[in-house]
Amino acid sequence: MHLNNLTGNMNKLKHRMGTREIKLLSTGGNPIQNKEVKVAQTKHKFLFGCSEFSSLSYRNNELEGEAREKAEERFEKFFQLFNFATLPFYWHNFERTKGSPDTKRLRQAAQWMTSKGVKLKGHPLCWHTLAAPWLMEMNNADILKAQLERIHREVTGFKGLIDTWDVINEVVIMPIFDKYDNGITRICKEMGRIKLVREVFEAAKQANPEATLLINDFNTSESYDILIEGLLEAGIPIDAIGIQSHMHQGYWGVEKTLEVLERFYRFKLPIHFTENTIVSGHIMPPEIDDLNDYKIAQWPTTPEGEARQAEETVLHYTTLFSHPSVESITWWDFVDGLWLGAPSGFITRDNRAKPVYDEIRKLIKGDWWTGEVTAVSDETGSLHVTGFMGDYELEYQGKKLVFAIDRQNEPLTFEI
Amino acid sequence: MHLNNLTGNMNKLKHRMGTREIKLLSTGGNPIQNKEVKVAQTKHKFLFGCSEFSSLSYRNNELEGEAREKAEERFEKFFQLFNFATLPFYWHNFERTKGSPDTKRLRQAAQWMTSKGVKLKGHPLCWHTLAAPWLMEMNNADILKAQLERIHREVTGFKGLIDTWDVINEVVIMPIFDKYDNGITRICKEMGRIKLVREVFEAAKQANPEATLLINDFNTSESYDILIEGLLEAGIPIDAIGIQSHMHQGYWGVEKTLEVLERFYRFKLPIHFTENTIVSGHIMPPEIDDLNDYKIAQWPTTPEGEARQAEETVLHYTTLFSHPSVESITWWDFVDGLWLGAPSGFITRDNRAKPVYDEIRKLIKGDWWTGEVTAVSDETGSLHVTGFMGDYELEYQGKKLVFAIDRQNEPLTFEI
Repeated sequence: MHLNNLTGNMNKLKHRMGTREIKLLSTGGNPIQNKEVKVAQTKHKFLFGCSEFSSLSYRNNELEGEAREKAEERFEKFFQLFNFATLPFYWHNFERTKGSPDTKRLRQAAQWMTSKGVKLKGHPLCWHTLAAPWLMEMNNADILKAQLERIHREVTGFKGLIDTWDVINEVVIMPIFDKYDNGITRICKEMGRIKLVREVFEAAKQANPEATLLINDFNTSESYDILIEGLLEAGIPIDAIGIQSHMHQGYWGVEKTLEVLERFYRFKLPIHFTENTIVSGHIMPPEIDDLNDYKIAQWPTTPEGEARQAEETVLHYTTLFSHPSVESITWWDFVDGLWLGAPSGFITRDNRAKPVYDEIRKLIKGDWWTGEVTAVSDETGSLHVTGFMGDYELEYQGKKLVFAIDRQNEPLTFEI
Repeated sequence: MHLNNLTGNMNKLKHRMGTREIKLLSTGGNPIQNKEVKVAQTKHKFLFGCSEFSSLSYRNNELEGEAREKAEERFEKFFQLFNFATLPFYWHNFERTKGSPDTKRLRQAAQWMTSKGVKLKGHPLCWHTLAAPWLMEMNNADILKAQLERIHREVTGFKGLIDTWDVINEVVIMPIFDKYDNGITRICKEMGRIKLVREVFEAAKQANPEATLLINDFNTSESYDILIEGLLEAGIPIDAIGIQSHMHQGYWGVEKTLEVLERFYRFKLPIHFTENTIVSGHIMPPEIDDLNDYKIAQWPTTPEGEARQAEETVLHYTTLFSHPSVESITWWDFVDGLWLGAPSGFITRDNRAKPVYDEIRKLIKGDWWTGEVTAVSDETGSLHVTGFMGDYELEYQGKKLVFAIDRQNEPLTFEI
């Protein structure tokens, strides 16, 4: 069986697809011959994600009235699109008072998101920005100890709910970060980048050997490239390379995106595009060096901006989805007006789905989705399902079976 | 004994100085009491160097008449200033035809320079620019083999004459260099930076375990910093960090120089400033990205430019000599009009010493030099010599002794 709507994508996206042979037998073991079945994809293997911090207040009953209703509406739109979400573990906020981590609220949110079929990533475990301020009162040995204990606590505590972590964030700039003194820059300066990365990754790996551990950076220059080579040569257990692409200052374009992909591709590790932003308002001026320095009262979304945002985002997702190394794209943020107040959402502040929402939905649940099709088993009871990698459901005479299409697909036999 | 002309520098430059106790005995073993001796520095430990490529044509009798006389004049000036020189081993020129290296001419030059008391460095053993063109006909495995054999041949062949090598040049850009295809970029792209650097350093170390092996780069950003950390974590035997500072586009200034020094200082390795340029003409426009792209018919030296060059170069040398990690400063070039046609020399094309020559001479053989002084031995025949590290001569009643002042200075006893 070949699904009609896929043929156009077959060549360009064949790395995203697979074919699985399924043999249907009656409970007596006889082949179910020449029968129609319905097959449909239920979930992507590729991680289409988004930052999702509002789940904390929503699931901890901190919203009321209209705010709660709006949140409900948003999550409905969210779950139609995404199978992956990034939850906030910024140490500054997560453990405002030493010894009082925000574990309970996070767990509430994580359990709910997981129950909706969304896979989660915790972000980040080690970062100079938003480091816990009370680290500053410690000496460097104690800061490192606190950092490693923190990693152990979170990675162990959320095991099963959160098994993907941005272990360390923005290491390229970490020891030379000079906007303000902080505990993490101090220890990175003393230890050097590689020794610190080794410590935090080994702590995370020890706490959850099954976890997917990322390094993440906004610096996509050869500095990051060279850093990763050094880390891998040093034997540090990095599972995936995280690349931020906050494009508040304008879309990178396909050429730059491919150039970045080509450089990181050589490590033969999965690449996650962890923080993607394209705004639907005016572009942040190019002279701003640190995006955080851009502070304006209002950053409105505009009709022209929304058209451009949709067009560029489609191009961006298509470029990334077409590249064999990329395993995840996470948007930043779902709703306008969050980080930097930017109109970077898929929906507006008043919950209107912007063109980008519809266009990306057409890709994720359209062009790149194996919709319901009818297949017919042969004389031996076998049929072949070709489709995008992910979870599938097969229906035969009211009975349902689930299976997956992945990179490797052994034939399956079902007694039905 | 304290030498008068040093007191002003004592604090700032104490890392450059040492004190040695010398006991003078008669041949019978009795102390030579209360006698005057003369002591003078004869050579710096610090390596004050310069690129010196014209020694090849000069010492291989390829110059005649006026050209030869001018060369003689130049070398006279050269040897008054420098105790270190960089000789050219650019593969493209050194082995224009495969199997016919320019060893003999190089050896002629090297032997002569060495006989003048000048220590030598070979530059470079591995570089994408000026790579041998015939590498392009080989597959990558053979290119690497040829590269390692080349290193073995040069480092073994010149052992004793040249024991300091720029083993690899400009690794940061090496695998992404895209101006033209070449064999070295090809293998660096395939192997990655760290694996290639390991191979070339191990080959050089094996060929001459006593050699001082440098990595060298014009990129002084965090990319180089991160690369070096990765190389050292990988256990690669780098003896010194080479930093180029071709300032055709203007003097860095003290602040940038100190910032660069601070970042590389943390590796606790000697730092060589390997290629220093400040022009005495107009400044190359800032929009030029690759210095090699700047091609003009004439780049004249000017009186104002010469005054500025002298002032900035004094500041530059003083900044570097004051930093404890720096062990060498090499100027690029001695005479105007060589690389890029730049008026970067200490002397003009017609052999006029520019102000920079005199000013740097005042430092190297003045402020930073322990000139001849008189010392008096005590009752036990002992005297203490404090001065800049280097070689010294002591004269007593027409007899001469030589000794050195270094970082560690065991007392010496001479029977005279």
